[in-house]
Amino acid sequence: ECPDFFADIPYVRFEGNQTSNLFAFRHYDADEVVCVRDTCRKQREWLRFSVAFWHTIRGEGRDPFGEPTKQWPWETAPASDKMERAKLRMNAMFQFLDKLGVDWWCFHDRDIAPEGEGGDLKETERNLLAMVGLAKELQQASGKKLLWATANLFSSPRYMNGAGTSPDKAVFLSAALQVKQALDAGKELGGEGYVFWGGREGYATLLNTDMGVELDHLAALFRAASGYADKIGWRGQFLIEPKPREPSANQYDYDVSAAASFLRQHNLQRFKINVECNHATLSGHSCAHELELARTQDLLGSIDINRGDPQSGWDTDEFLMDLPEATRLMLVLLEQGGFERGGGLNFDAKLRRESTNVEDLFYAHIASMDAMARGLKAAAAILNDGALKDLKTRRYRSFEGYSLEGRSLADLAAEAMAMEVAPSH
Amino acid sequence: ECPDFFADIPYVRFEGNQTSNLFAFRHYDADEVVCVRDTCRKQREWLRFSVAFWHTIRGEGRDPFGEPTKQWPWETAPASDKMERAKLRMNAMFQFLDKLGVDWWCFHDRDIAPEGEGGDLKETERNLLAMVGLAKELQQASGKKLLWATANLFSSPRYMNGAGTSPDKAVFLSAALQVKQALDAGKELGGEGYVFWGGREGYATLLNTDMGVELDHLAALFRAASGYADKIGWRGQFLIEPKPREPSANQYDYDVSAAASFLRQHNLQRFKINVECNHATLSGHSCAHELELARTQDLLGSIDINRGDPQSGWDTDEFLMDLPEATRLMLVLLEQGGFERGGGLNFDAKLRRESTNVEDLFYAHIASMDAMARGLKAAAAILNDGALKDLKTRRYRSFEGYSLEGRSLADLAAEAMAMEVAPSH
Amino acid sequence: ECPDFFADIPYVRFEGNQTSNLFAFRHYDADEVVCVRDTCRKQREWLRFSVAFWHTIRGEGRDPFGEPTKQWPWETAPASDKMERAKLRMNAMFQFLDKLGVDWWCFHDRDIAPEGEGGDLKETERNLLAMVGLAKELQQASGKKLLWATANLFSSPRYMNGAGTSPDKAVFLSAALQVKQALDAGKELGGEGYVFWGGREGYATLLNTDMGVELDHLAALFRAASGYADKIGWRGQFLIEPKPREPSANQYDYDVSAAASFLRQHNLQRFKINVECNHATLSGHSCAHELELARTQDLLGSIDINRGDPQSGWDTDEFLMDLPEATRLMLVLLEQGGFERGGGLNFDAKLRRESTNVEDLFYAHIASMDAMARGLKAAAAILNDGALKDLKTRRYRSFEGYSLEGRSLADLAAEAMAMEVAPSH
Amino acid sequence: ECPDFFADIPYVRFEGNQTSNLFAFRHYDADEVVCVRDTCRKQREWLRFSVAFWHTIRGEGRDPFGEPTKQWPWETAPASDKMERAKLRMNAMFQFLDKLGVDWWCFHDRDIAPEGEGGDLKETERNLLAMVGLAKELQQASGKKLLWATANLFSSPRYMNGAGTSPDKAVFLSAALQVKQALDAGKELGGEGYVFWGGREGYATLLNTDMGVELDHLAALFRAASGYADKIGWRGQFLIEPKPREPSANQYDYDVSAAASFLRQHNLQRFKINVECNHATLSGHSCAHELELARTQDLLGSIDINRGDPQSGWDTDEFLMDLPEATRLMLVLLEQGGFERGGGLNFDAKLRRESTNVEDLFYAHIASMDAMARGLKAAAAILNDGALKDLKTRRYRSFEGYSLEGRSLADLAAEAMAMEVAPSH
Repeated sequence: ECPDFFADIPYVRFEGNQTSNLFAFRHYDADEVVCVRDTCRKQREWLRFSVAFWHTIRGEGRDPFGEPTKQWPWETAPASDKMERAKLRMNAMFQFLDKLGVDWWCFHDRDIAPEGEGGDLKETERNLLAMVGLAKELQQASGKKLLWATANLFSSPRYMNGAGTSPDKAVFLSAALQVKQALDAGKELGGEGYVFWGGREGYATLLNTDMGVELDHLAALFRAASGYADKIGWRGQFLIEPKPREPSANQYDYDVSAAASFLRQHNLQRFKINVECNHATLSGHSCAHELELARTQDLLGSIDINRGDPQSGWDTDEFLMDLPEATRLMLVLLEQGGFERGGGLNFDAKLRRESTNVEDLFYAHIASMDAMARGLKAAAAILNDGALKDLKTRRYRSFEGYSLEGRSLADLAAEAMAMEVAPSH
Repeated sequence: ECPDFFADIPYVRFEGNQTSNLFAFRHYDADEVVCVRDTCRKQREWLRFSVAFWHTIRGEGRDPFGEPTKQWPWETAPASDKMERAKLRMNAMFQFLDKLGVDWWCFHDRDIAPEGEGGDLKETERNLLAMVGLAKELQQASGKKLLWATANLFSSPRYMNGAGTSPDKAVFLSAALQVKQALDAGKELGGEGYVFWGGREGYATLLNTDMGVELDHLAALFRAASGYADKIGWRGQFLIEPKPREPSANQYDYDVSAAASFLRQHNLQRFKINVECNHATLSGHSCAHELELARTQDLLGSIDINRGDPQSGWDTDEFLMDLPEATRLMLVLLEQGGFERGGGLNFDAKLRRESTNVEDLFYAHIASMDAMARGLKAAAAILNDGALKDLKTRRYRSFEGYSLEGRSLADLAAEAMAMEVAPSH
Repeated sequence: ECPDFFADIPYVRFEGNQTSNLFAFRHYDADEVVCVRDTCRKQREWLRFSVAFWHTIRGEGRDPFGEPTKQWPWETAPASDKMERAKLRMNAMFQFLDKLGVDWWCFHDRDIAPEGEGGDLKETERNLLAMVGLAKELQQASGKKLLWATANLFSSPRYMNGAGTSPDKAVFLSAALQVKQALDAGKELGGEGYVFWGGREGYATLLNTDMGVELDHLAALFRAASGYADKIGWRGQFLIEPKPREPSANQYDYDVSAAASFLRQHNLQRFKINVECNHATLSGHSCAHELELARTQDLLGSIDINRGDPQSGWDTDEFLMDLPEATRLMLVLLEQGGFERGGGLNFDAKLRRESTNVEDLFYAHIASMDAMARGLKAAAAILNDGALKDLKTRRYRSFEGYSLEGRSLADLAAEAMAMEVAPSH
Repeated sequence: ECPDFFADIPYVRFEGNQTSNLFAFRHYDADEVVCVRDTCRKQREWLRFSVAFWHTIRGEGRDPFGEPTKQWPWETAPASDKMERAKLRMNAMFQFLDKLGVDWWCFHDRDIAPEGEGGDLKETERNLLAMVGLAKELQQASGKKLLWATANLFSSPRYMNGAGTSPDKAVFLSAALQVKQALDAGKELGGEGYVFWGGREGYATLLNTDMGVELDHLAALFRAASGYADKIGWRGQFLIEPKPREPSANQYDYDVSAAASFLRQHNLQRFKINVECNHATLSGHSCAHELELARTQDLLGSIDINRGDPQSGWDTDEFLMDLPEATRLMLVLLEQGGFERGGGLNFDAKLRRESTNVEDLFYAHIASMDAMARGLKAAAAILNDGALKDLKTRRYRSFEGYSLEGRSLADLAAEAMAMEVAPSH
């Protein structure tokens, strides 16, 4: 009864580099086994691709200067009401995963289910429960899985001054309610992770802001979420997703360091970080830097895979198709042995506004999946070869067998003085 | 016998806003008492201005595209050798402080004393001790004081791959030696603080870098320095000065969050942060943001006062002369009750390359001192008036008497559901 | 019968710096005469403030991450249909101008009148004519005047690939139609200028773009517009408004130089430039730079007055309230003797998303008008004093009485060789 | 008698993709013929690689925070004086070209010959003539050729306020003299081009700057240079190289548009543009954008091939090694049929400061030459395939057979109205 929205699109399969089929993978071969040092896994297990409901199904092509451009079939199909429309979208999502051959998906609560009329909280809850029920059925039928869920605490006008950091208690409570319901939904769907992206957790001007209080409130919300997960027996991974500059002019979770510092200050041990590449570059770091900085602190949880436009100063959420960059990212990921529970490569990426065909949704995902698969294989080859590691080892070899532990500054200085001459370089 | 390098420059005094004397303060009245809420202090005590040896005395006007332009009298005066030259500079420093009426100064070890020939460590040590001796005499004669000292661990080719993070043990030891000697020098001169600016603590490419090891080494150096301070009985303030982007393409101490996270991770409790305004803006934050972020974590130690060029992507170290900005900064500083030991407004600012007259050194400092004094008075007036604080209090009043402590997510969500309708905004 | 949307707001009058009335000007005294060298004019004549229909009346507080926040009374008042709603807005515009005491306004065609159903061109035309008729009545009743009109060639999905540069002829024709109708509207309302802002005139990727053809088409549209103005006897000023980066990833009219180069290449002599300050800063220039660059080429036509956020990489359209910046801009404007026909200070500025009260619209405009009035008086004082001009004259005096005209490189080189020694500096 | 500075380095030859020899080309095969549409040329003719004297021979590894790191053998070899040193460098240059197999070189006057003592102009001239004589001998012996020459009008303190735009006539004359001598040198060496890079042609503050006068002076210098070329019978290509932001805080030749606008305003018809990729990205454009913008105006003369660091805000002059980027650039170059006289790919690129081995000079050039050769072949394949061109043709086909010439706005609008409904998209 639900239309087949991709009837004209063939199933996307691996065909190798010589194919001329635009609906085929040239490099991503889901079940091919790739070994990194001693660990062998299928490509689909190393990469754990995930499709984002918000961009792929709900992206409408609006920008700050223009109206929506997309007319997706699931939006233009006949539908009697908002919930009927929501069901069409959910079906479109699973049809898309099916055609593309991706195992995982991610969503915000408001992506999949509308708020109740006039903000009616009971109706909002019913809507969400209904859509979770449908998603569960579709998951069971298809074998697709939920990578992570999240609550949209930024689109509604009520969050304009913050959600967990709102100066208005009612708004804070509203955020807490959404988080609880989204955690329940995630658990119901077997989600492996839960992400907090603090879109409105920041400030417009310090002159009206009590930064200390706001960050304490945010930490309280995170602690409450963690406690609730324990209570309901959900053992997934909590993740903070840093982002600078927008939509708050000053975002608290600016980058990995800001998030890590906050987690340490508030002793939030159950949290890791979801690094988004375009967020990384907006904060003045390369994506590999943010991944490595998280990895070396045991905080690298998951990746929102995309890229920015180096000439633009905001989040353009482009599909990452660049092989050297894919390789740099996979080197960090493989160095930590791949993803753990709750981690994956989630396509937080969207078509350009003027790209309005359903085919384009496929081309974009396919090209990025191929790029990441090439990056996986290139990184594995580099690590298996060992030359790069040898180079690093040689570079630090003067420290071999020498511990700084317990040496006083006077000791170190005395060792230096014994050299008589400062090292040249 | 040392020449009077500023013989033609009059002593700079407060003359008020109507003066036409370019060598007078229009707003900075050192001994005028300014009260903030219940605390009354002289302007000189609130502001604690400090002159930077490196820019003011050693600045030569070189840039990446051109040769030095300055011909300061203390550089062109007859001098028999490097140490003689160093003494002329030190005298110039104290003559400048005297004429300008500033109480404090800051220096790097290499600013004040040359390295020994061919890197001879004994000679290097003798040179430094000699210059510290001269500085001590000049301090005693003038009543001027040392705000903080630091070691230059970035100019020498030996630090091209890092100092505390160098992959070469000999270079690490060399850095440790410099830190020890600089700490000794600071103690001898009664310095209130000691700053680590990690100019080369970063990396050029992740491909040859072991970030975890490098940061552990850096933490070990900081711990050793802290232990040494205890041992020699120096009770001053250690400070980390964050900076992004240069000279290392990727600097570890990127911003306040990066430094705070590092300090927490490595349990370095004796350290605070020296925020430089231009470093703040380069990292994508306003200077007030970095100050406030440090303040709310009890990490705001001192300020390198300057400003950048919003159209340039590097540290331009311009003198801050903008009243609204000065007010924003002073609001944060006064909110924490002013500086504690080791803190001050250090002019990490330089003349433009084409500004080559001695008079310009005075104009620049005077203008910035006046701007900061106006900012002090404006901020004090705002805080004493109380309206801004009332506005903030009202903004958060819905949380009054309501503690998030101990409330579970289920409790919070239940409170929200009881509202029946989500808040509009 | 139209409601009084600002019934609770008093008329805004000049009260001087000591007033505590938030609805008063402290510095802007419309009828005060300010003399610059030999020219004396009222403040309102030097400044020619204009309110922008799009931001002030139509701004809704949407951003890329969130829904509209504003609930302006003219949008929530009962209205039977789209045209009824349009009339309420137009009345709100003139009520606002009246209360604020601003003489001029600016609009896009689509700001004031809705498109016909389903894109019906006849209905679109009728709608526009009706609203122009109402605006004319309101202008006559109030004495308010139109600074400039423009056509919105960027919001509709049909312009997603460009308007004058669209690869689709039907879209180009549609743009031409809008321009013709907007020129007719501007003439009917006595508009002094007409602005082209090429929001979609650019490209997403060079791979599908024929830049040469697109720019030729754009020039053809401009030429046709100019010819039409002659034909209908409209003698106003055409203006190009440069903008970099958005919404097209690559905008053709990047900055003043790009626009000037284009005008020269295509011999479009009737055009000047409308410099928007935030567009200037986004293109890597100060606003004063763009004004001066245009002025020295006799291309400075009008100014969209606003400012950006130095920490954000897009057009934030904030109200300019900074006195030093206002002074820098007014120095350039006064240097050219103020505005000519078609020029003014148009407030292309908006409230922050979380600022949702009608009062805020007034506070924002008042503060910026006061800032610009202070800038006017400061710049006039600087120019009247003459010291700055003397400084410049002295700086270039070595060229006095020396013409480069007609001197060959060999002559110049011979003069230099006669110096025997290169100048030091 | 000159030492062989690269005695340990083998001649670099093409060995193909399977080689493990670090001193071999994997993709650049100088004499391989590549056909683009109907034009067949050797790789060396398409690419016309050139080595830059300043970076490769004179680069010393200094940065704004540190002293030189390089100890090149031609600098440390015994030498009796400055001219002896200069001769060693020139020999090193030709030895390097020989080993690397590059045909072209570029230089600044001051790269190859020192100024006379105390600025003595006669000695300066003698020095330059002597080194030009040596270069000519080495060119004749080796068959290497000069792509372009330029005068260094930015390093000396005398140019701190500009060269052609200096407010000091003596400085302007000094610049004219250098230009004349550099033109003479270029002619003597058979140079195909002459470049003006206006490193100090800009301003620090508008408050002391007469922009109109300065740009008129600059145009006069360019005109005089052009006239002198005619007089001495040099028929090479004059080129302007745009650069934003540094070293002048505000550079007049900001980007291609600024240069093109200036050339048109001053009717300088003999000039084209030398696009440097890193300068392009600093000005907010992609390198391909600047190339295409110049190409469509018949202004693309030559390319300084390099890349920047997207995370740094200044000119990092890195070697371009990115295949997708190389392809994008070669697409533009091949679209215009390759370089004309005076054009080539000049390596305006340098080693990182911590890269201090002679081998690294080879690795860097080899890798970039290979990348550009791959880009050449990829771009040729794309153009020869024709699919991309077909796509573009189809995209604009609605304009086929339709001329905008001579159509009035009223005509165009009437055509649009005849559609009755606006195009959707």
